[in-house]
Amino acid sequence: MARAWNQGEQERARRLERARAAGLGKVVDAARIGDLLNAILVSGDRICVEGNNQKQADFLSGALAKLDPAVIHDLHVVQSTLSLPSHLDIFERGIARRLDFCFSGDQGVRMARLIKENKVEVGAIHTYLELYSRYFIDLTPRVSFVAAQSADREGNLYTGPNTEDTPAVVESTAFKQGIVVAQVNEIVEKVPRVDVPADWVGFVVKAPKPHHLEPIFTRDPAQVTEIQILMAMMVVKGIYGPYEIARLNHGIGFDTAAIELILPTYAESLGLKGKICKFMSVNPCPTLIPAIESGFVEAIHCAGSELGMEAYCAARPDVFFNGPDGTMRSNRVFCQLAGHYTDLFTGSTLQMDLEGNSSTATLNRVTGFGGAPNFGSESRGRRHASPGWLKAGLESARHGSTMPRGRKLVVQLVETFQDKMAPTFVERLDAWKLQEDFGLSLPPVMVYGDDVTHLVTEEGIAHLHRCETLAEREQAIRNVAGYTPVGLARDRKVGENLQGRGIVQRPADLGIDPRMATRDLLAARSVKDLVRWSGGLYDPPKRFRNW
Amino acid sequence: MARAWNQGEQERARRLERARAAGLGKVVDAARIGDLLNAILVSGDRICVEGNNQKQADFLSGALAKLDPAVIHDLHVVQSTLSLPSHLDIFERGIARRLDFCFSGDQGVRMARLIKENKVEVGAIHTYLELYSRYFIDLTPRVSFVAAQSADREGNLYTGPNTEDTPAVVESTAFKQGIVVAQVNEIVEKVPRVDVPADWVGFVVKAPKPHHLEPIFTRDPAQVTEIQILMAMMVVKGIYGPYEIARLNHGIGFDTAAIELILPTYAESLGLKGKICKFMSVNPCPTLIPAIESGFVEAIHCAGSELGMEAYCAARPDVFFNGPDGTMRSNRVFCQLAGHYTDLFTGSTLQMDLEGNSSTATLNRVTGFGGAPNFGSESRGRRHASPGWLKAGLESARHGSTMPRGRKLVVQLVETFQDKMAPTFVERLDAWKLQEDFGLSLPPVMVYGDDVTHLVTEEGIAHLHRCETLAEREQAIRNVAGYTPVGLARDRKVGENLQGRGIVQRPADLGIDPRMATRDLLAARSVKDLVRWSGGLYDPPKRFRNW
Repeated sequence: MARAWNQGEQERARRLERARAAGLGKVVDAARIGDLLNAILVSGDRICVEGNNQKQADFLSGALAKLDPAVIHDLHVVQSTLSLPSHLDIFERGIARRLDFCFSGDQGVRMARLIKENKVEVGAIHTYLELYSRYFIDLTPRVSFVAAQSADREGNLYTGPNTEDTPAVVESTAFKQGIVVAQVNEIVEKVPRVDVPADWVGFVVKAPKPHHLEPIFTRDPAQVTEIQILMAMMVVKGIYGPYEIARLNHGIGFDTAAIELILPTYAESLGLKGKICKFMSVNPCPTLIPAIESGFVEAIHCAGSELGMEAYCAARPDVFFNGPDGTMRSNRVFCQLAGHYTDLFTGSTLQMDLEGNSSTATLNRVTGFGGAPNFGSESRGRRHASPGWLKAGLESARHGSTMPRGRKLVVQLVETFQDKMAPTFVERLDAWKLQEDFGLSLPPVMVYGDDVTHLVTEEGIAHLHRCETLAEREQAIRNVAGYTPVGLARDRKVGENLQGRGIVQRPADLGIDPRMATRDLLAARSVKDLVRWSGGLYDPPKRFRNW
Repeated sequence: MARAWNQGEQERARRLERARAAGLGKVVDAARIGDLLNAILVSGDRICVEGNNQKQADFLSGALAKLDPAVIHDLHVVQSTLSLPSHLDIFERGIARRLDFCFSGDQGVRMARLIKENKVEVGAIHTYLELYSRYFIDLTPRVSFVAAQSADREGNLYTGPNTEDTPAVVESTAFKQGIVVAQVNEIVEKVPRVDVPADWVGFVVKAPKPHHLEPIFTRDPAQVTEIQILMAMMVVKGIYGPYEIARLNHGIGFDTAAIELILPTYAESLGLKGKICKFMSVNPCPTLIPAIESGFVEAIHCAGSELGMEAYCAARPDVFFNGPDGTMRSNRVFCQLAGHYTDLFTGSTLQMDLEGNSSTATLNRVTGFGGAPNFGSESRGRRHASPGWLKAGLESARHGSTMPRGRKLVVQLVETFQDKMAPTFVERLDAWKLQEDFGLSLPPVMVYGDDVTHLVTEEGIAHLHRCETLAEREQAIRNVAGYTPVGLARDRKVGENLQGRGIVQRPADLGIDPRMATRDLLAARSVKDLVRWSGGLYDPPKRFRNW
């Protein structure tokens, strides 16, 4: 008998027929979500619940968690972020078993427990782009659950500014004969623009409540410390300036917020406007508003949006990627890609070892890393040149190779001590213990030391890429590690040598007086200031308002 | 006066108004293409003419080349491929000046001349993903010209299997208030499926002739040589088998076609079916048909389609990514991404130096590299493990680092001599001369030696990643370089040592008898055989038919 080459199509047809038989059309009533799920899901299915770091298909996730595990079980979940309790309820209740993911955020501790209890069987912890890639290789979802702002009755979806993972999830599922279910906030006559065409979508459900949005990119300027300002000054004067960093990506955090907030003040005073930080691949962080308004940052492509920034982005089409309807379209795939090929990434970490390997994975938490390993790694497939990329490449120790090559700058920005006086610098990362505990193939390193070019602490800058050997790199790290045990064990002689060669730079070497690092340098000192800079367009979530 | 933040929007509105004033609606008559271009283009614009390695917006490109350079000039072209004469006519006639691109294929020689004559000012030669990335950073097109199979009167586009670059080009342009013009083969009442939503598209023109499609992925099995078969056997038995390569990408060429054609014969006899080559990111190369039909290759995601393979792909939805309409959707962004994160890339080159750096750039031709630098570089942002990735990583010389890390396998497959007895191995790549001649920042290297794990010639396999030093790597290369001057200058003693350590493997070391490397091992020996394997579904272009 000839082999059937359309088993996926047949399977899809069977499931759609079950839904039809249950009286379900393309637009499904929220009250009947259980019937829909039972019609289109089969035990063992590979599914994706959108689930990225902001927008959540929370109604669908909640409905999945209510399924009867006697009927639907052993699902394989392939989704970027698990940050809602219901995402893990699916495992706790035995509906899903296997998991391939990127990031678990607030659920990290519970995730660790479920792994230990064998309720979650982890395939791997990915970065965003590699997981999306696998949607097109060996981890294609059979059923996907996504979230959008609105849909029309045919099923055309409008995501609004929070487009995020939706295009990647939907394309892989719909074009491998899978089924896409979208929860929307409203059903409308005509969507403002089409973000996902109707024929890619199987079912649409108007959820009882608008989908959840988490404002994870908002940092209150009031909490930026003077140490962070000092470090930001070093980054601007010691790295962004000399390497002429026009295109870059920032991680989330107060460290990078401080940089953003001193662009219109300190960086401007150094004559760097129009030279650095012109193009960014980053979400619309509110702390970027002053730099945008003063013409410092010219264009931004976003992975997602940020709660409260919708009207501001819509009013700045020359800066953001806005559609014909006037609102932004984000796209995590293109933003992650764009960020990979920019000249520089600056991010923070919780722990760094003596080779410069860093990780935010700490004991008893399995959180993953999201985008940092992608932004924070050399883009070896890059071929176009820029001043900073060439300079960093030519400065790098190349172990005798005669072939010149450019290099991405990766800056790790950390204070020597974390909360509760835990030293950032350690002889051995907790990641090793995690590898053991969770049976991982390798320690979960976020950014590898080989990929880091610059380490910045309140003590100074270490130009790690210029170190000739691992031993030298270790000394460079120790020499900016301050009063941590790692710092105290530094070799002073080697340190002086490194400082003499400009591989370690103290604030004074950069002409920076630490006493100048005050909050006066911040272009905005509060959320209210940000609102003012935005001309009232930024509408911060309630938790960030204290006036 | 307050700054205007919607200059792009205003500019767009002015141009659309000019088109309206000229009596042009959304669907434009082909005879009026000149009027449309004059209405929507302004000197100095950044434009993209699609322009990838298969599908060509040739009607639009031809119309651009007929513009009056006194009116429209100094355009900045940002497009992946320039392979049609009209693509360069635009420069020759002074309509465009600046160029950022990836690949120039057949136009390489003319490109070199135009650069020397200062008619083309090259920004940079990119890989596909990095150029698409820059569409979202600093090289966003203001006007894009794309090609699709059909459109409805609203402007919804159906690309059919040749989706290729279209989604990336359109998204970046449409969401930065640019204008998208699509040439289509037909205007229909309803498109079979929506590949690009109408509100992303400015104008649609039915071209007088269907858009050009180039079958660049077709290799006639009749031309596969016994040396290529021997090398393919070494790759299968010496690399794909021991590294359990289930997910991979192949370059274009007879070398990789030979591998594909011995999967159902030689690889099957080694018991490797179901273990290797299950998932591929590659175009639907006709030489893959036997491996698909025999159940070897299970799923393929494609960057583009291939002329003649349309019906075959449509009949194999379990293998390809087909839409609800039944035809394939390709997507170069996702395929390049997927290929970057697979376990292995095998490709060929024209020249390799003693460090293992390789390039297809030769004197007097500026062609670029397309996707190879992306597929053929370490995916340092990858975190998920697989057997081959772990094995290659743990085997690699890491200069004393104690942190284990995985590694992508990059195989370079070359005969020691090219056409006209030009040696493949050289002391110095032509790329150095090209750098000088064309004022490039760096020599145009396709794949860097640091990223290559395996070099395979008819002489054997060199496991370059296991070499401890550059000197050792040089000797490993010399020891498989045969009778080229580079090969003849090898150190026999070191060669024996490398062979003893398994870093150099001869066919005999792999248990391969070169006399077995005959065309009998090919599952298909002609294009006609491929048609037969496909059950008559593959419909090769005329130039490949000799019956």
